Amino acid sequence: MEPLYLEDLSIGQKFTSRPHTVDAEAIKAYAREFDPQLFHLDGEAAKKSLFGGLAASGWHTASLTMRLIVESVPLAGGVIGSGGELSWPRPTKPGDTLRVVTEVLEITPSRSRPDRGTIVMRSTTLNQNDEPVQVFTPKLVVQRRQAGA
Amino acid sequence: MEPLYLEDLSIGQKFTSRPHTVDAEAIKAYAREFDPQLFHLDGEAAKKSLFGGLAASGWHTASLTMRLIVESVPLAGGVIGSGGELSWPRPTKPGDTLRVVTEVLEITPSRSRPDRGTIVMRSTTLNQNDEPVQVFTPKLVVQRRQAGA
Repeated sequence: MEPLYLEDLSIGQKFTSRPHTVDAEAIKAYAREFDPQLFHLDGEAAKKSLFGGLAASGWHTASLTMRLIVESVPLAGGVIGSGGELSWPRPTKPGDTLRVVTEVLEITPSRSRPDRGTIVMRSTTLNQNDEPVQVFTPKLVVQRRQAGA
Repeated sequence: MEPLYLEDLSIGQKFTSRPHTVDAEAIKAYAREFDPQLFHLDGEAAKKSLFGGLAASGWHTASLTMRLIVESVPLAGGVIGSGGELSWPRPTKPGDTLRVVTEVLEITPSRSRPDRGTIVMRSTTLNQNDEPVQVFTPKLVVQRRQAGA
């Protein structure tokens, strides 16, 4: 993919990632390292939890989403965000196939730094039923191709 | 730790995690799996990036933060969030020692479900210089000890 500079982006532009299927072993492996709670570790115990069955940590969904964004949104200089609003409308379950659709919402050239700007994008992580498992709306720094106004 | 129910929480209540030191190998291992960009993978290449040196993925900081929250905020039923505002004021660097300070900001019993409520908390992840590397302000579901009004 050709790297994209601020000038190459337009409001409403969309990027779609490849699909990625999550299995129970991956859910448990992430949980053991970063979110060791029973409903992410043990399918039987998870039945009695709010989730009603094994569910991926939201941070696992977020981590997988980042992988898919890195592969599908070819920003020059890389995908570098300072944060944003994050929501998990429903959990990722074993066997779910995720894909990420990213849309450019705002583009703002920097007033003080002619070599860069910021964008706001919304990355929606969908499961195989087109239901969102995560919505993240970050602000990112993006390089400009030409300096100066 | 005794599990805490909604009735046990108070506005302004704070929880502090143990410290956790992040090394370059852990930064690269996370990045290989979830955020394979050069500035998270290669210290030399990272010098030319916006970060000026090897930096952890923000999602790695978030994942480590979750681990420290799970260990330090003993909510009955577990730490189950639906999302919130997430920001990374600065990156986690190799050798940084992180700890997470969590403060309860809002407590709202459910009107329709007497067995639960929601809280808003703010988890600030600090490095060894007391500088925030992440601030996350999630809404969580918390169990009530007694049902009914």
